[in-house]
Amino acid sequence: MREVAVIGVGMTKWGELWDKSLRNIFVETALLALDDAGVVEVNSMYVGSMSSGLFVGQEHIASLLADYLGQSNIPSTRVETACASGGLALRLGYMEIAAGISELVLVGGIEKMTDVSGYEATYALGTAADQEYEGYHGITFPGLYGLIARAHMEKYGTTREQLAMVAVKNHHNGSKNPLAQFPYEITVDSVLNSVMIADPLRILDCSPITDGAAAVVLCPAEMARKMDKPVVKIIGSGHATDTIALSSRKDITWLEAVYKAAKQAYAEADKGPQDIDIIEVHDCFTIAEICVLEALGIVEKGKGGDAVEQGLTSLEGKIPVNTSGGLKAKGHPVGATGAAQVVEIVKQLRGEAGERQIKKARIGLAQNMGGSGGSSVVHLFERE
Amino acid sequence: MREVAVIGVGMTKWGELWDKSLRNIFVETALLALDDAGVVEVNSMYVGSMSSGLFVGQEHIASLLADYLGQSNIPSTRVETACASGGLALRLGYMEIAAGISELVLVGGIEKMTDVSGYEATYALGTAADQEYEGYHGITFPGLYGLIARAHMEKYGTTREQLAMVAVKNHHNGSKNPLAQFPYEITVDSVLNSVMIADPLRILDCSPITDGAAAVVLCPAEMARKMDKPVVKIIGSGHATDTIALSSRKDITWLEAVYKAAKQAYAEADKGPQDIDIIEVHDCFTIAEICVLEALGIVEKGKGGDAVEQGLTSLEGKIPVNTSGGLKAKGHPVGATGAAQVVEIVKQLRGEAGERQIKKARIGLAQNMGGSGGSSVVHLFERE
Repeated sequence: MREVAVIGVGMTKWGELWDKSLRNIFVETALLALDDAGVVEVNSMYVGSMSSGLFVGQEHIASLLADYLGQSNIPSTRVETACASGGLALRLGYMEIAAGISELVLVGGIEKMTDVSGYEATYALGTAADQEYEGYHGITFPGLYGLIARAHMEKYGTTREQLAMVAVKNHHNGSKNPLAQFPYEITVDSVLNSVMIADPLRILDCSPITDGAAAVVLCPAEMARKMDKPVVKIIGSGHATDTIALSSRKDITWLEAVYKAAKQAYAEADKGPQDIDIIEVHDCFTIAEICVLEALGIVEKGKGGDAVEQGLTSLEGKIPVNTSGGLKAKGHPVGATGAAQVVEIVKQLRGEAGERQIKKARIGLAQNMGGSGGSSVVHLFERE
Repeated sequence: MREVAVIGVGMTKWGELWDKSLRNIFVETALLALDDAGVVEVNSMYVGSMSSGLFVGQEHIASLLADYLGQSNIPSTRVETACASGGLALRLGYMEIAAGISELVLVGGIEKMTDVSGYEATYALGTAADQEYEGYHGITFPGLYGLIARAHMEKYGTTREQLAMVAVKNHHNGSKNPLAQFPYEITVDSVLNSVMIADPLRILDCSPITDGAAAVVLCPAEMARKMDKPVVKIIGSGHATDTIALSSRKDITWLEAVYKAAKQAYAEADKGPQDIDIIEVHDCFTIAEICVLEALGIVEKGKGGDAVEQGLTSLEGKIPVNTSGGLKAKGHPVGATGAAQVVEIVKQLRGEAGERQIKKARIGLAQNMGGSGGSSVVHLFERE
């Protein structure tokens, strides 16, 4: 298998983009990635999207987007594993280049979520849960994560304030990211006094509904070394699944899919949690960041809340987490999130992250998650 | 790259399966494929589904189905390219084994289409077309293929009767397939007198709305040779796209995505149209089979109608096409169709096709198509 590098990244301002359609948002973003890579044509494309059918009434988007991007007739594949669709697209593009099948692959993610009502968006997001055993009974996604949060507080003594601190940290980081949907600071008090969504989660514990895309260009590392910019390699890739219904799990505070995907990525890279300089995790809800850090082995089981309280994961901490602002502040166009995590990691490893730049970052990890942990994709990156 | 073989195939009776849910249908089918392969566990899964979100309100199905199949925590990926999703799943599984990443991969397709109203099903299928330039203006899928049919008749003199003969042939074949949704004969007269759907296409020119799944198990050819059954290898794979809107094409009677995908598959296999013994094509409408045979190079441009009239593609003809009954008689659960084509080809090449068995079939081709030709996947198979 060949070494694979990311040679181009693209992302535009996220938010409620009512004046742009799905194809416009994707093409604009993908052109930035192609420009950054210095290439015009690619051999194939992978696009992650969770539910373009329910959000904008358009399936078959891999062909549509290849066409509008001027990449006529190339193989173009849409992949879906709920909110981890973008990360999964990266994994397949990575495998295709590692295997020697292609030389240049464009990988992206897209979701256009604000063209429907809040009710319809909640329904569409709910299709990531088990419709027969969860959705049918009326539970929403915040409800599922509310259960996880309550169980984590009960089992490990995680506090309501610690949950809030995750959101505060990520908004602090996001305030330094001009592409973020909500680039401003919040306080613990504002989280604790925000409207209740699903006890104990309040609205400022939840990632928003967002329109946006992200894209990256991959090639063999050998090709990347001939270009005039730092080489960022993908050194490990993992993908695993779990039951999508929480009721089928032994312990709802533990994310087995994240653990298994990380284990696979660490093994491939021959690295461990102690080697990682920066991390982007899937903080769809504040409790998610806490559980993910535990499953990644960054902190011990039950210590995720303490980690944020002690500043371990802040911009100045030992292992900065979600320097981009995370899903919380940057926004969460569900299919795009996994690809946007890669954009942030690559910018950091290249030293192009502006005000939120982490010094001497050399190894990064991106963790993307579907549903309430029914799937996860983990990648490790290294700057040569 | 390693040689890849299909060692297990599974399919259950297709139709309106109101007493089974999506997960039941898939698991039942996948277990047949695993049994046929003589394996219990696989390393990963690829599932094709066009629109499980719109049809049954369930995305994230790759995780769900891996879980219900007892394949805990394995990487499981859903792919989508409208009605070619099943064929695309095969291609990705094939690449994963060819690259040496996995030893055993389960590939399947599923669609549960009859839990919604006819109006809703038509809407969901319409999401394979360009929503902004086609769907918005009210055109349905039969309407798009009606335009193609009319243009083909005008340009090449294809007759209304020739279109009907495609349906008659495929129902004849389907009458010998006990798993087909409509396993009975029809006549040219009955097609010509059936209700008009989108001029010139009548209801018996159209494939039906179907619930169903299909699954196959892949492994390295070297592993397959140690088993006690004929070895069927995948010797070529191609995937290409085209504009999904007909209005963007130079000639709507020509399927460039099919041509490009076939060219790639032929080149990889070092074979040409003259080498093929049996073919399964994507006859979502009668005109589609005619256009596809031309794009595959089986007949000259414009001669697809003559081919069926002269019996070239019948069970007794030089190149039998759609021995399974095709989408027309076997049924068309959109995401499953590409995988079911592989089931038929493998059964034929193994000599297990019962009453519809083609003697001395050694090389087979499966062609799967998304939308009105916006994507296509072509595979070539050979019995050792």
